[in-house]
Amino acid sequence: MTINKTYALPYVIEPPEKVKATILETIEYQYKGKRSIDITIEQPEYTSVCPMTGLPDVGTIIIAYRPGNKIVELKSLKYYLLQFRNVGIFYEHVVNRILDDLVGVLDPENMTVTGDFRARGGITSVVKASYEKK
Amino acid sequence: MTINKTYALPYVIEPPEKVKATILETIEYQYKGKRSIDITIEQPEYTSVCPMTGLPDVGTIIIAYRPGNKIVELKSLKYYLLQFRNVGIFYEHVVNRILDDLVGVLDPENMTVTGDFRARGGITSVVKASYEKK
Amino acid sequence: MTINKTYALPYVIEPPEKVKATILETIEYQYKGKRSIDITIEQPEYTSVCPMTGLPDVGTIIIAYRPGNKIVELKSLKYYLLQFRNVGIFYEHVVNRILDDLVGVLDPENMTVTGDFRARGGITSVVKASYEKK
Amino acid sequence: MTINKTYALPYVIEPPEKVKATILETIEYQYKGKRSIDITIEQPEYTSVCPMTGLPDVGTIIIAYRPGNKIVELKSLKYYLLQFRNVGIFYEHVVNRILDDLVGVLDPENMTVTGDFRARGGITSVVKASYEKK
Amino acid sequence: MTINKTYALPYVIEPPEKVKATILETIEYQYKGKRSIDITIEQPEYTSVCPMTGLPDVGTIIIAYRPGNKIVELKSLKYYLLQFRNVGIFYEHVVNRILDDLVGVLDPENMTVTGDFRARGGITSVVKASYEKK
Amino acid sequence: MTINKTYALPYVIEPPEKVKATILETIEYQYKGKRSIDITIEQPEYTSVCPMTGLPDVGTIIIAYRPGNKIVELKSLKYYLLQFRNVGIFYEHVVNRILDDLVGVLDPENMTVTGDFRARGGITSVVKASYEKK
Amino acid sequence: MTINKTYALPYVIEPPEKVKATILETIEYQYKGKRSIDITIEQPEYTSVCPMTGLPDVGTIIIAYRPGNKIVELKSLKYYLLQFRNVGIFYEHVVNRILDDLVGVLDPENMTVTGDFRARGGITSVVKASYEKK
Amino acid sequence: MTINKTYALPYVIEPPEKVKATILETIEYQYKGKRSIDITIEQPEYTSVCPMTGLPDVGTIIIAYRPGNKIVELKSLKYYLLQFRNVGIFYEHVVNRILDDLVGVLDPENMTVTGDFRARGGITSVVKASYEKK
Amino acid sequence: MTINKTYALPYVIEPPEKVKATILETIEYQYKGKRSIDITIEQPEYTSVCPMTGLPDVGTIIIAYRPGNKIVELKSLKYYLLQFRNVGIFYEHVVNRILDDLVGVLDPENMTVTGDFRARGGITSVVKASYEKK
Amino acid sequence: MTINKTYALPYVIEPPEKVKATILETIEYQYKGKRSIDITIEQPEYTSVCPMTGLPDVGTIIIAYRPGNKIVELKSLKYYLLQFRNVGIFYEHVVNRILDDLVGVLDPENMTVTGDFRARGGITSVVKASYEKK
Repeated sequence: MTINKTYALPYVIEPPEKVKATILETIEYQYKGKRSIDITIEQPEYTSVCPMTGLPDVGTIIIAYRPGNKIVELKSLKYYLLQFRNVGIFYEHVVNRILDDLVGVLDPENMTVTGDFRARGGITSVVKASYEKK
Repeated sequence: MTINKTYALPYVIEPPEKVKATILETIEYQYKGKRSIDITIEQPEYTSVCPMTGLPDVGTIIIAYRPGNKIVELKSLKYYLLQFRNVGIFYEHVVNRILDDLVGVLDPENMTVTGDFRARGGITSVVKASYEKK
Repeated sequence: MTINKTYALPYVIEPPEKVKATILETIEYQYKGKRSIDITIEQPEYTSVCPMTGLPDVGTIIIAYRPGNKIVELKSLKYYLLQFRNVGIFYEHVVNRILDDLVGVLDPENMTVTGDFRARGGITSVVKASYEKK
Repeated sequence: MTINKTYALPYVIEPPEKVKATILETIEYQYKGKRSIDITIEQPEYTSVCPMTGLPDVGTIIIAYRPGNKIVELKSLKYYLLQFRNVGIFYEHVVNRILDDLVGVLDPENMTVTGDFRARGGITSVVKASYEKK
Repeated sequence: MTINKTYALPYVIEPPEKVKATILETIEYQYKGKRSIDITIEQPEYTSVCPMTGLPDVGTIIIAYRPGNKIVELKSLKYYLLQFRNVGIFYEHVVNRILDDLVGVLDPENMTVTGDFRARGGITSVVKASYEKK
Repeated sequence: MTINKTYALPYVIEPPEKVKATILETIEYQYKGKRSIDITIEQPEYTSVCPMTGLPDVGTIIIAYRPGNKIVELKSLKYYLLQFRNVGIFYEHVVNRILDDLVGVLDPENMTVTGDFRARGGITSVVKASYEKK
Repeated sequence: MTINKTYALPYVIEPPEKVKATILETIEYQYKGKRSIDITIEQPEYTSVCPMTGLPDVGTIIIAYRPGNKIVELKSLKYYLLQFRNVGIFYEHVVNRILDDLVGVLDPENMTVTGDFRARGGITSVVKASYEKK
Repeated sequence: MTINKTYALPYVIEPPEKVKATILETIEYQYKGKRSIDITIEQPEYTSVCPMTGLPDVGTIIIAYRPGNKIVELKSLKYYLLQFRNVGIFYEHVVNRILDDLVGVLDPENMTVTGDFRARGGITSVVKASYEKK
Repeated sequence: MTINKTYALPYVIEPPEKVKATILETIEYQYKGKRSIDITIEQPEYTSVCPMTGLPDVGTIIIAYRPGNKIVELKSLKYYLLQFRNVGIFYEHVVNRILDDLVGVLDPENMTVTGDFRARGGITSVVKASYEKK
Repeated sequence: MTINKTYALPYVIEPPEKVKATILETIEYQYKGKRSIDITIEQPEYTSVCPMTGLPDVGTIIIAYRPGNKIVELKSLKYYLLQFRNVGIFYEHVVNRILDDLVGVLDPENMTVTGDFRARGGITSVVKASYEKK
């Protein structure tokens, strides 16, 4: 029986540098200066790959922020997140990376990025990183 | 095969100016001066159209407020929200627009308008705008 | 076809004065002076009628209070709420009326009355009124 | 203490004869002869009163039928069911009565009327009556 | 107070003829002759308008079928259903109309179209029409 | 018909004195002095009887506390609560009684006892009593 | 430490003979001969005691039947089931006992009695017994 | 970094022969010959170990049967299932093994054993084996 | 504003030939000839890409089968399904492809493969293909 | 009948010293000094044994922490928790033990360990221990 054999991964794992923040587009927020708002965006179909096993990680990415003058355009955000599909990256670094990229582009008043990942080895993980403009 | 062809929209997209706040009616709050209350109204059948694709946006509008002397009459609110049906407007501006219109008519102590929109491109959005009387 | 005809209501709408607070009975709270408690009572079968259309309003009344020396007897409360069955009264006034009646009889340390009403015209409403003893 | 006292009902209990089937309106089914359909209508806000205690019974009435030439008009059905509000009638007879009235007016291919009643004395009841055209 | 006034509808109601089946595209089913499959498609954001009140009807359309040689292309189906947005049509006729249009285009082995509509006047309706190829 | 006849209770109602706190056993908390913990215990099968009607009351008792040097042994707690089975006692007094007994035996830093009782006459009740060591 | 000590039960276990079917009252079914109905009654607060350990068993009793000429009166059924409170009886025999008693009194066309019992030792049990009139 | 190192299992994996059917006790079914019943037993805390990785498998075992003259005693069943705790055995063989052991002891009219196992590698499995007495 | 611009996909779409059935391993079923079983396997993290848009499709693949002499080894199945990650293939063909591959390797008595796919354009799809050994 | 007999445990209970913290591996947190994050890890398949009865305890362990320079490697955490499988230890001490071990290895800014245990004798327990770096 050859069950315990090792399987080759059917894709090539890419490095985090593959992900480009330049793909993100912004829309001018029309009520800036008058009133801020709280925006929560949820992408439940996020996937990347584990840098150790190469197996897929699957989860929900939740981005909550209070914009300054700019709001993120959702189609560009979809393609931005799509870049992680074959990238090898740890949970803890994904949320930091997304937070850094979005804060860089949007300059929001605050932002929290949460990754809620499905069970691996029976264990689920939620990781949350926050930014507050000083 | 003609699958990737573009489809004409079966309706005309209207501008946000189509929506009139004058349709909103108010009822005098009988306990004003004695005691305030907290009112939360939820319309789960809200729809407008995306100004970029022209496709419908669908979601729940939640209006929470502490009235001053006036409360909103619900039938007029239903028809007010109905005006957005074929209007092209972004999520972030819908909640601001509704908040401005209702604050203008009701002069409440406070109000929060939340739009909880169904997934588009796999991504859901919640947008919340608040007003506090000074 | 006579579908859009108007229908006579099969009952007579009664005024709010029909409801009597005198029906409410109280029980002496045995631990008064020693320790207060928080009591939450929920009646999910509340009904009255809309003063404008005469059609039934249906919802849940939630009464949360911290008693002083007296607690409300539940059977009398059931009959007290039953009095609203054919009474025409707005959501916003129902919770105020119940709050006034119960505060008058119980003299509690605090009380909140919430009405969580089923959808009418697709729109649900929650109304909450609070009292704090000074 | 007067807690165990008896309370007068704040309404008059009416007999089942109060309910009139003549209020029901019908619409001609346009696809008759070509194809039948299955229709399920649910009214979750039904109420009548118990003929023994006079206290309200509350529940959901579900009407499932395969029409012949006629379908029931929903607004007239709403007013038909509203007639039971202060009528004293047992669970088992309510569903039979509604079934008889609707079959008389619609002459359907089949129909099932179900009453799903909320707990009384901790006990819930579901009662179901069916009709099949021969 | 002008609350019971009548409101003009903020859109024009269109007739059912507005809906064109010609918009539907099909894909050739590659396994035809070898094996059939069961396909269930659900559109939870369906809306049209009531022909009597002009107010929106909202619900879920479920299309279940066993294809012959052709399967429906989903983007064209989305635009086909979108045509109903401002059309005035009864529940019972919507499902028949969709069934007729899809059967005409796909020639399936069987098909069931179900409309599960949200509460109106507190009453929900489910309507189901079926086709079986002889 | 003899339906409205009165039924004899098939058990004898016992007084609250029947319940003995001496049955409660404690375990020494090994981390005392180093670190406290928060413990929440839930018994969803609690039952006693109503002192007025003699009919069973059923609910969930929730005990949340921060121990001092002692934690309650769960088997003894099960038997302690079992003592209420045929005892006649009001909701408001049950939680006070349990709180007094457990505080007396455990000398905790704080404790909250909550009773969440099933519907009687359609009405549910939640009663909560708290203790804080000074 | 005296934790593993044995606890005396705070009530006396009674034999199954304690339960009397004579307490059950019936109502004449008005539509007998014309049409039968299906009745499902659910009592979620059933309790008896385990004949081996003396500890309470807790569960839901579901009685589904198609009546002949008689239907069971619900208040008498409540008191009938209440008789089991301190009776020692196995799950498998409870449902048989209730079935025998109800069939004896009602002479129904068919009946199924189900007991859905809460976990004991981590294990839940559902027991179902059926009767069909020949 | 030593992350990809192999970990020793903190327990010894035992062979399926460790499990003994002789531990199972039976109770005589009092209604045998008169009427059979359907019994469903659910143990949601089942665990054994994977024979390939040695890691725990966790799931729910559901035993549904129609007894002949004997019913299984639940405490002995609990201890019977407990024997699998450190045993290495595949899902497909667990349900067959339990079915064989219980049929051997109980000689039922029929029995189905289902194992509903938690996700491993993101994949859940349900395995069901049935026996029918001829 | 450049929002409506087209985005390059961050991965290369692969053809269905990329998926190899040879990766699937089998285990001999020990109870063959004695008794068959029903096995249901669920992989809720399936993903491939749409052959038209190149965007990811996400869903649950459910494989239900009654084995002959062989059962599928789960780790090899995981890697088999992983091969679809960057493959462009329609819903209707995925389930047929998986069914063909598994039937070829396992020669089961029967098998059903179901794909339950997440909403695209607001529309969900479920596709089911079945095989029965003759 | 031998039902009340005592059963031998099919495994040997091990002392808490069996659990070694040295098995825990850490990963350097790349964003240390720049930004902290909140991590929540949930293992719903935890099991150990009760030191008094020897029977299994089953529950969910939740570890929430804000890391300093190190984060826990999840595979090593899985094996760390696996060590408790046959260890006899009280609920209240499990959470303290895990908290001590993880704080010792990770030196986090804060950490809370929660154990949410399944019902025993009908009673569930949740135990929570917290650490804050000074």
